[in-house]
Amino acid sequence: MKNYIHHHEWKIIEKGFNPELNKNSESVFSIGNGRFGQRANFEEDYSGESMQGSYVAGVYYPDKTRVGWWKNGYPEYFAKVINSANWIGIKVAVDGDNVDLHHCKVSRFQRVLNMKEGYLERSFQATLESGKKIGIKSTRFCSMADDELGAIKYEVKALNFSGEITFTPYVDFDVVNEDANYDEKFWNEVDKKVSNGLAWITAQTKDNDFGVETFQVTTGMQLALTKNGEAVSFKARKRKKEKFVSNQFSVDLAEGEKTTLYKYATIVSSLNYNKESLTAACEAALERAKDSGFTKMLKEHKAIWKQKWANSDVEIKGDVSAQQGIRFNIFQLNQTYTGEDVRLNIGPKGFTGEKYGGVTYWDTEAYCLPFYLSTSPQKVAKQLLVYRYEHLQKAIENAAKLGFVKGAALYPMVTINGEECHNEWEITFEEIHRNGAIAFAIYDYIRYTNDHNYLAEKGLEVLIAIARFWSQRVNWSIKKEEYVMLGVTGPNEFENNVNNNFYTSYLAVWCLKYTMECIEYVKTNQAEAFGKLAKRIKFKEAVEVERWKDISTKMHYPYDNELDIYLQQDNFLDKEQILVKDLPKKDLPIVQNWSWDRILRSVFIKQADTLQTFYFFEEDFDMDAHRRHYDFYEPRTVHESSLSPCVHSILAAKLGYEKRAYQFYLQTSRLDLDDYNNDTEDGCHITSMAGSWMSIVKGFAGMRIENDCLTFKPFVPKQWKGYAFKIRFRDSLINVDISKRKTNITLESGHPLTVIVNGKDCEVK
Amino acid sequence: MKNYIHHHEWKIIEKGFNPELNKNSESVFSIGNGRFGQRANFEEDYSGESMQGSYVAGVYYPDKTRVGWWKNGYPEYFAKVINSANWIGIKVAVDGDNVDLHHCKVSRFQRVLNMKEGYLERSFQATLESGKKIGIKSTRFCSMADDELGAIKYEVKALNFSGEITFTPYVDFDVVNEDANYDEKFWNEVDKKVSNGLAWITAQTKDNDFGVETFQVTTGMQLALTKNGEAVSFKARKRKKEKFVSNQFSVDLAEGEKTTLYKYATIVSSLNYNKESLTAACEAALERAKDSGFTKMLKEHKAIWKQKWANSDVEIKGDVSAQQGIRFNIFQLNQTYTGEDVRLNIGPKGFTGEKYGGVTYWDTEAYCLPFYLSTSPQKVAKQLLVYRYEHLQKAIENAAKLGFVKGAALYPMVTINGEECHNEWEITFEEIHRNGAIAFAIYDYIRYTNDHNYLAEKGLEVLIAIARFWSQRVNWSIKKEEYVMLGVTGPNEFENNVNNNFYTSYLAVWCLKYTMECIEYVKTNQAEAFGKLAKRIKFKEAVEVERWKDISTKMHYPYDNELDIYLQQDNFLDKEQILVKDLPKKDLPIVQNWSWDRILRSVFIKQADTLQTFYFFEEDFDMDAHRRHYDFYEPRTVHESSLSPCVHSILAAKLGYEKRAYQFYLQTSRLDLDDYNNDTEDGCHITSMAGSWMSIVKGFAGMRIENDCLTFKPFVPKQWKGYAFKIRFRDSLINVDISKRKTNITLESGHPLTVIVNGKDCEVK
Repeated sequence: MKNYIHHHEWKIIEKGFNPELNKNSESVFSIGNGRFGQRANFEEDYSGESMQGSYVAGVYYPDKTRVGWWKNGYPEYFAKVINSANWIGIKVAVDGDNVDLHHCKVSRFQRVLNMKEGYLERSFQATLESGKKIGIKSTRFCSMADDELGAIKYEVKALNFSGEITFTPYVDFDVVNEDANYDEKFWNEVDKKVSNGLAWITAQTKDNDFGVETFQVTTGMQLALTKNGEAVSFKARKRKKEKFVSNQFSVDLAEGEKTTLYKYATIVSSLNYNKESLTAACEAALERAKDSGFTKMLKEHKAIWKQKWANSDVEIKGDVSAQQGIRFNIFQLNQTYTGEDVRLNIGPKGFTGEKYGGVTYWDTEAYCLPFYLSTSPQKVAKQLLVYRYEHLQKAIENAAKLGFVKGAALYPMVTINGEECHNEWEITFEEIHRNGAIAFAIYDYIRYTNDHNYLAEKGLEVLIAIARFWSQRVNWSIKKEEYVMLGVTGPNEFENNVNNNFYTSYLAVWCLKYTMECIEYVKTNQAEAFGKLAKRIKFKEAVEVERWKDISTKMHYPYDNELDIYLQQDNFLDKEQILVKDLPKKDLPIVQNWSWDRILRSVFIKQADTLQTFYFFEEDFDMDAHRRHYDFYEPRTVHESSLSPCVHSILAAKLGYEKRAYQFYLQTSRLDLDDYNNDTEDGCHITSMAGSWMSIVKGFAGMRIENDCLTFKPFVPKQWKGYAFKIRFRDSLINVDISKRKTNITLESGHPLTVIVNGKDCEVK
Repeated sequence: MKNYIHHHEWKIIEKGFNPELNKNSESVFSIGNGRFGQRANFEEDYSGESMQGSYVAGVYYPDKTRVGWWKNGYPEYFAKVINSANWIGIKVAVDGDNVDLHHCKVSRFQRVLNMKEGYLERSFQATLESGKKIGIKSTRFCSMADDELGAIKYEVKALNFSGEITFTPYVDFDVVNEDANYDEKFWNEVDKKVSNGLAWITAQTKDNDFGVETFQVTTGMQLALTKNGEAVSFKARKRKKEKFVSNQFSVDLAEGEKTTLYKYATIVSSLNYNKESLTAACEAALERAKDSGFTKMLKEHKAIWKQKWANSDVEIKGDVSAQQGIRFNIFQLNQTYTGEDVRLNIGPKGFTGEKYGGVTYWDTEAYCLPFYLSTSPQKVAKQLLVYRYEHLQKAIENAAKLGFVKGAALYPMVTINGEECHNEWEITFEEIHRNGAIAFAIYDYIRYTNDHNYLAEKGLEVLIAIARFWSQRVNWSIKKEEYVMLGVTGPNEFENNVNNNFYTSYLAVWCLKYTMECIEYVKTNQAEAFGKLAKRIKFKEAVEVERWKDISTKMHYPYDNELDIYLQQDNFLDKEQILVKDLPKKDLPIVQNWSWDRILRSVFIKQADTLQTFYFFEEDFDMDAHRRHYDFYEPRTVHESSLSPCVHSILAAKLGYEKRAYQFYLQTSRLDLDDYNNDTEDGCHITSMAGSWMSIVKGFAGMRIENDCLTFKPFVPKQWKGYAFKIRFRDSLINVDISKRKTNITLESGHPLTVIVNGKDCEVK
């Protein structure tokens, strides 16, 4: 837990130079534009604690899997988004002395992330060993308006001396990943160019043994210089070395004078261009930047952010800290994923760190999708669905590797390209509920958008493949005379290889039923499309549906009659029944303080598991059942996943436990700003940020879709005066403004609509 | 499955040069003396497929643990017996051309392992590119009479030319482990010496980050040369390089003449000497070898083997293949472990390969102990018990790491120095039945030897610590109103993290009961010793024993009333009940053909698990129960562990399933000779070799200890005429000779005794 970020409604502010917090701030102050992103590393050299991070979305390397003991079925590689060229670097020297804050006296240090307009500012004064003092201010952004461009404005002022400032802006592809499995470097140089004021490098990811495509990235820079606001021409000393290009030039400043270096950067990749045309694309982009100039580029960038906030802002009244927290979450989600490219998805750390390798988890479907559904144009959420559709064949291959047949699909636990990249058997092979979340996302999307066409187009094919998996994954128990699902891991990863995890089994049956429903819909409405699909995927409707029906009606769900609750898994009540409140404080978090076996046999729940069922399928259970299950499972939940509190928050809100709902919300809304888990230096928890948004919109405001209609059952946490948020629903953009007295819903754009607030119709015009 | 070893009653014979089988033969033809061992690598250079292996028992390195995802409680290192200096190397050149069988025409190649006398012979003719043809014969052994010495007699004959033979005998410490986690070399040179006819190197294991002691080993050689049988003096060219010393000298041979190089090697280590006195010890040992000479050394070595066979031979009449198989097993067990040094134990591959790192498993207690108990002086088996006693404090620390308190001990799954070195959570933390096997070994030893003094001396302290572990490892189930043991892995590693594994729970309760019994015994017979122990280990007898009693009487054992059998674990009958015979052949072994999750949720059993209970505690169950359990579990067992068939063989024999008993026996008796599992090149399955012996003695001959008396219920497999074996029982050595007509038991040495054969007393005089 840290408390050094200054509270502000629209800005993230760090004041004072805190080297021990630098890696933390590098994560928090990260910027990105959906296409590439950058940790808040310094432009000038810094020899203190730092983790360099420049990431190009979708550009990955298949790192050889490392395990203690190989199990059959493990994936051979772990695809990870790799650290790409350093494009921000600008070495600065004063009369030949290199500026490195690790060796300077630093004052007036300030970092400001302007979330409203999407740029990062950093300013400070530095006194070198020679006693010379300079003032530096840098402003940078990754352009949302032209996602091949980044720009830096780097101002240097001679504060107490007259002398020579030497700039060495560079592009450096000689970068590493801190978490590389075998300490490899992943880039080979292909080509490079340095001319006066312009340079680029093209590098290619190393060959690999797994038949995975190699990527090329060209990173270029275009430079411009001013002195006291006037353009200055320069004749640069041009340097090239392996994977490195730079310009070097100097400016003489008299005391009090200022020089500004503009560094425009381009990042283009073979994801979007033929390898042959990359350098031309790079130079064209640099030309665009040069033509526009910093001010115009920034203006266009700000315009996009204005639009994003108009769609997605949440305003909290009377609580600046909470306001900053939720906007930070929304800002990060918006700069991580834009829906522009179907090959991209949302890594757990976004562009803020390399941990988890930028891969896609079920977080996307279960947590992030609702945010994008409600705050972005419809196609953004749809792209997330299509991403999985594009991976369907890989998911079928993946299931086949594990022994499933006839077009059954098991989507990977983590992936970039559709290939499973996780290598703990209890998760890779057993945490199969992810398959259900992918089906649920289709349901969720159609429920929200009414885009039933998506079924015939792509959705049904995915659903059938998933239903086929579940159908083979269960077996008939002669003892129970029911279908059972053995050897699974639920969302609660503090249980492994259990039998009949309620959430997984319930979700599986839901998948079967929903798939049958969708088959009926498509058969009725798009018979021809259905016929084609059925033929292509060799769908034996009669036989297959027959079995699905049988499973749906004869599935085993562990249940305790005495407590009148579903059990998380078979024999859950054999565990020692102690509660989180009974644990000594020093034992928490248990994942850090208890051995793994002790965690496994304990009753403690890492994250919503049985309760995730109630979150997904609330309409299947009455309020009493909600309360019984919440009251049983909540006291046993340690919330050691950042994805957990939001689900409990939403359920607590529904049950009228307003205080608890707000407490859960607090656990995630400022998770990274205050570094609750002491791990923000690895990167921010991007996917769980969507949970904060859900806690407000689905929790406090009680937003649901019921019968094709938006409904609300709002309350205002007592710490707040009120709150308001934007919701896109089909053709309308509305503003929902909730105060303690009333709820005011207004139409921002689009068609008028009727919503239901506390059970009453409400016309929004 | 291979079939190239020629059958012979006392010898292992390979004829013809088979480069593709070389690594396999290197394992099979390995030699050792309990102190060090050597794979059957060639003395001269060989650039074909080969795995160099020279191992010094107890000299290990803690290699940094490699895992995919770190779990709390994992050990930091994996201690492994490392490859030590190559002491056999002799480069040979003919008129300057190096002899390397990979580049020669090879004829009359033959390898013979003389098991009766314990030495390895290899002979061949090689034609070099020049057309020059030599005949070579090498004889080598690791002396059983002086376990610091090895010796090689290396004869070279000029077959079709006159010319110069150059020998370069060397010692090379620049060796690697093929399975090093991080591709490191583990040795640093400390010192070396080369003089005429003598050289040595002292090397030290690299420093490590784990506070584990470093070892020094000095490996030396002493040389002697003859020509046509006459001693020849030589003036060697002496070479030293990093971790390498050699002598080089030449002999002129006329066509048909022969030269013989004697290379005596010494291996001494800091296990047995101060590091400062290692080189002196080495030189003293070389002096001993020189004084004795090859013939005398070999004679003394053979004398020890004669003695070993007199104690441990099994003779099979009418089946040379079976005879060779069982003698190979006995030979390997005898050369792997001699009981001379309490710090040593029996690695799964002995001295025949580096796989599994030479560590100790529960194999020692459950499989090997009975062999040594019955075929070696009593102190040999006792040393195996004391080995665990010496590790008791580490086992208590190990349990403490996992959250157990008050002197509870969890012995490691694999270890060299007492520290847990296994890093799969489902085994490391959960395959805890090993703790019970260590307690059972104490019982087994005392039952066999009547050495009750061992309890007060050491055994009881171990038993109490183990009982304390079980007492904390169970918890009370409010649902079952019984004690349960959650989250365990039984011997059947095809199940992980199951609840109430019958074998483990039964064994745990047995441990509690036996410990209580032993406490009573020691209290009664050695009250003072008991008082001291109780005080030292803070034994709260009343409270602790009270709980043990409670657990003993209220333990949950999964049971099916319909089938009238104990279930391997809770809900075992939920699994799809198919049998091994129903599996397609191509699916076997499932560990190679099925994904891990499929194996886990299948009914298939890797190795005796529930049936292991019947093997250990047969007196607790009647014949009908034996039959019901065997008939249920056997058809579901795939025997994909080499430790499995022997237990099934013994039970089948008991049940009168003689044919099946013999089939199981065949699965292990020639496992390595015929390379059943296609993995002998990694090393031989040393620990499961004891199972072959058990199949004969406990299975076919039905040997048991009942009421302090040896009993037999023998039958002769129909493929055999008869069989005979030696048994040491307390002060007596007997020969048990079983033919189809009768069983003849004679006293070889020691006191006359009464044994029971088929229920009838039989005086052995």
